[in-house]
Amino acid sequence: MDTLAQKTLSKATPTESALRALKMAAYAKRQVSVDCLDSRSPSFRCLRADRRGCDRSLRLESRMLSRALRKSLSYGNPIVAGFTGSYCSRLYFHQTAVSKVASQAEGGFKPGKVAVVTKTTRYEFEQQRYRYAGLSEEDLKQLLALKGSSYSGLLERHNIHTSNVGQIVESLQKEGIEVRTVKRGEYDEDTVQWADAIISAGGDGTMLLVASKVYDKNKPVLGVNTDPERSEGHLCLPVHYTHAFSEALQKLRKGEFRWQWRQRIRMYLEGTGINPTPVDLHELQLSLEQHSKAHRITTETQSSTTHNNPERPHLLPVRGLNEIFIGESLSSRASYYEISIDDGPWEKQKSSGLSICTGTGSKAWSYNINKLVEQAVEDVLRIGKLKTGLDVPLNQEFIESVTETYNESLIFGPEEDKLFFSVREPIVNRVFSNSRQRGFAKKVCVRSRCWDACMVVDGGTSFEFNDGAIATISLNEEDLLRTVILD
Amino acid sequence: MDTLAQKTLSKATPTESALRALKMAAYAKRQVSVDCLDSRSPSFRCLRADRRGCDRSLRLESRMLSRALRKSLSYGNPIVAGFTGSYCSRLYFHQTAVSKVASQAEGGFKPGKVAVVTKTTRYEFEQQRYRYAGLSEEDLKQLLALKGSSYSGLLERHNIHTSNVGQIVESLQKEGIEVRTVKRGEYDEDTVQWADAIISAGGDGTMLLVASKVYDKNKPVLGVNTDPERSEGHLCLPVHYTHAFSEALQKLRKGEFRWQWRQRIRMYLEGTGINPTPVDLHELQLSLEQHSKAHRITTETQSSTTHNNPERPHLLPVRGLNEIFIGESLSSRASYYEISIDDGPWEKQKSSGLSICTGTGSKAWSYNINKLVEQAVEDVLRIGKLKTGLDVPLNQEFIESVTETYNESLIFGPEEDKLFFSVREPIVNRVFSNSRQRGFAKKVCVRSRCWDACMVVDGGTSFEFNDGAIATISLNEEDLLRTVILD
Repeated sequence: MDTLAQKTLSKATPTESALRALKMAAYAKRQVSVDCLDSRSPSFRCLRADRRGCDRSLRLESRMLSRALRKSLSYGNPIVAGFTGSYCSRLYFHQTAVSKVASQAEGGFKPGKVAVVTKTTRYEFEQQRYRYAGLSEEDLKQLLALKGSSYSGLLERHNIHTSNVGQIVESLQKEGIEVRTVKRGEYDEDTVQWADAIISAGGDGTMLLVASKVYDKNKPVLGVNTDPERSEGHLCLPVHYTHAFSEALQKLRKGEFRWQWRQRIRMYLEGTGINPTPVDLHELQLSLEQHSKAHRITTETQSSTTHNNPERPHLLPVRGLNEIFIGESLSSRASYYEISIDDGPWEKQKSSGLSICTGTGSKAWSYNINKLVEQAVEDVLRIGKLKTGLDVPLNQEFIESVTETYNESLIFGPEEDKLFFSVREPIVNRVFSNSRQRGFAKKVCVRSRCWDACMVVDGGTSFEFNDGAIATISLNEEDLLRTVILD
Repeated sequence: MDTLAQKTLSKATPTESALRALKMAAYAKRQVSVDCLDSRSPSFRCLRADRRGCDRSLRLESRMLSRALRKSLSYGNPIVAGFTGSYCSRLYFHQTAVSKVASQAEGGFKPGKVAVVTKTTRYEFEQQRYRYAGLSEEDLKQLLALKGSSYSGLLERHNIHTSNVGQIVESLQKEGIEVRTVKRGEYDEDTVQWADAIISAGGDGTMLLVASKVYDKNKPVLGVNTDPERSEGHLCLPVHYTHAFSEALQKLRKGEFRWQWRQRIRMYLEGTGINPTPVDLHELQLSLEQHSKAHRITTETQSSTTHNNPERPHLLPVRGLNEIFIGESLSSRASYYEISIDDGPWEKQKSSGLSICTGTGSKAWSYNINKLVEQAVEDVLRIGKLKTGLDVPLNQEFIESVTETYNESLIFGPEEDKLFFSVREPIVNRVFSNSRQRGFAKKVCVRSRCWDACMVVDGGTSFEFNDGAIATISLNEEDLLRTVILD
């Protein structure tokens, strides 16, 4: 495979559109390939029902090729689309599919009014906490030192963030755009209504918050990572735009970007004792106690509404951009529930919880639940080597390579019309079964058998989900989130 | 390897003691072999520092042989100890080590006073819950049906448990033993003081509770699984004794059993804002709210004590038989902490929590955190096959075999003087590192950087563990729990 990649790398310079076509193809390949590791996925079944093993290898090969391509693309090497045979046909098939959802902007984008939603830095947070307790700045310094934290470190990160926000606002105003800066605590539906576009100035958490109040699939949301050294920023623009935001604005103006519609999860809730009112985990920085208290208060205020319509499933007032996590609120308690995939049979399960994610979320919590560490991969290969007597390499480089390929296969595209469910630490014994630890689905139904559980959306909004409640989790075109791809 | 196993299987009948020696050797082998998959483990380093790869294979082979042996032993086949060469020397070495901790009883064991601690069945639990709410039995039936539960099913399990407890008590009384039956809610230190031995009549949870109040390493604890169809009973006697408890008593009387001293974990707590008073999770069936409330109450009552001795680490008044779990109480929140293994350098980590277990606990939560499902093993092997071009088998049988071997290697002996730590869903990025996802250690220190976290012992007792608290986790000979091995 690598030889083929090398050959294609050495050919003549393509035009920009050809390069873009290649990037989309490589991206499309990733969309094809990830299916291959789950033979039960609908698309896999449709395409190659009878030649499983062979095709899985083929697709994995195509995946590794696309990775090699993407790597070279990111290093700026010119490549010619010299593909042959079956790759081509799949390429074109998916290229068409992709172009429907990630499209080149028609003309530029220049919003008149932009809301900039800023995160709360750790410094601000600690300050608020201790001021509330009546302590001075000096006291704060000492307390932090006692705990092993650095006051000056926190202040530095705070200043970096604030300075970056300042640059963003300045760049926007220079373009003649009306700017409204709101702290995350002040961000509400009115802000969304007012703005033509919304910028999240913080990390991924801020981006999730910003997205959570946007229901209009035509309202663009952009994320800028205001502290790249401390935050991953998967959902944010590439890091260099943090210090060069005016460059990003120019590209937007000229149309040198693509729209990306990210799928989001919706949830219907029905059954006994349900409570469709969300509890915001971040906003209030709730402890466990406050968390359950908040749930209880909302139950009491909502009880009349629930009783009036006992049969109709409630559509919950949030959308998951990353994932839904279902499980006992107390981290050390095992979760009991029943699960049905794509209207299949119900299965009783006991585990540490259930994660259902989108393509966007496949890089987040779900990724961490399912990824393998090199130690584990090495051990599997070692055992395989022992049992077969084959000369399987066990050097560091090979282990890293296999681990990387495995983990990358967990990721799929944000526009993909499918959910990925994974059971966290499934407990399989005489009593509980687990036919599939993970897989793709269009729809997942869960019936709670839990004691004190919740359904958590994007790690930020929580719904009570106790014994007798039934959740139906799915995707809907209406819930798409409009974001930007800037290279 | 299988050929050698086969050859040894076909030889003449050994005496009982030889058979026992073989069993202990096979068990000892398991103790050797599990090290081999962690090259950083101290014992591995000492034994074979310079011939890593070769010996890991050798040890894995010995492990597979011992498994084959154990399987045949359990089917009652006679085996002769026909081992050769290096296996023998390791066998003898470990046989000596093992015999120090799992020893044949010298004469019989016939306690004069036995306390039988019984679990609360789900039926009793639901009854209490609804009676408290002022509902009748009929109301209970209907409510359960609404939730999709079966009243008659719960009652049936309750009756099975009660009947088995009855048999146990009867068998004891027939032997002239004085019996005190206590519900788990009534079980206390006085009961432990009074009894010569304690029997747990329930599942593993009840056994953990029973053990939690025993500090005397000479006081035997036995577990009887009173509902084998619904409960795994890892910590309990083999299932056939549930319906034939008098047989178990006879063997005990005659000395036809072995003592087993199980290692237990102790924790020291120090640092800022610590709270050394435990909160019992099971007893009160706490919701999150009550959990944190309980922590808060204990903080208020204990605050004076903490201030008097700010420097001295507190030895917590519990011992972990299975494991200690450290992490945010709220299951959807990421945990931040620093960890130091065996007085090594501190490492900042972000994850879903940290598990530290004993050999006993290596079959429990830790097992579920670390085990691999066949789906994952198949994918790793498939990727390995693709990258090497080797003819790695990918049929169901082979995948199952590799998965089984991998998962079994996570288990180690209850008497082994070592802890096994594993980081659950480590988050590795530009900001957080994770040099080792898991491994063996004698001592683990953790400094909390959490918001609302706890240290949970055996899933039943919880200690606050917030930002600034430091825990030192280790094993101590004084904390051993005396249990029984009955075949």
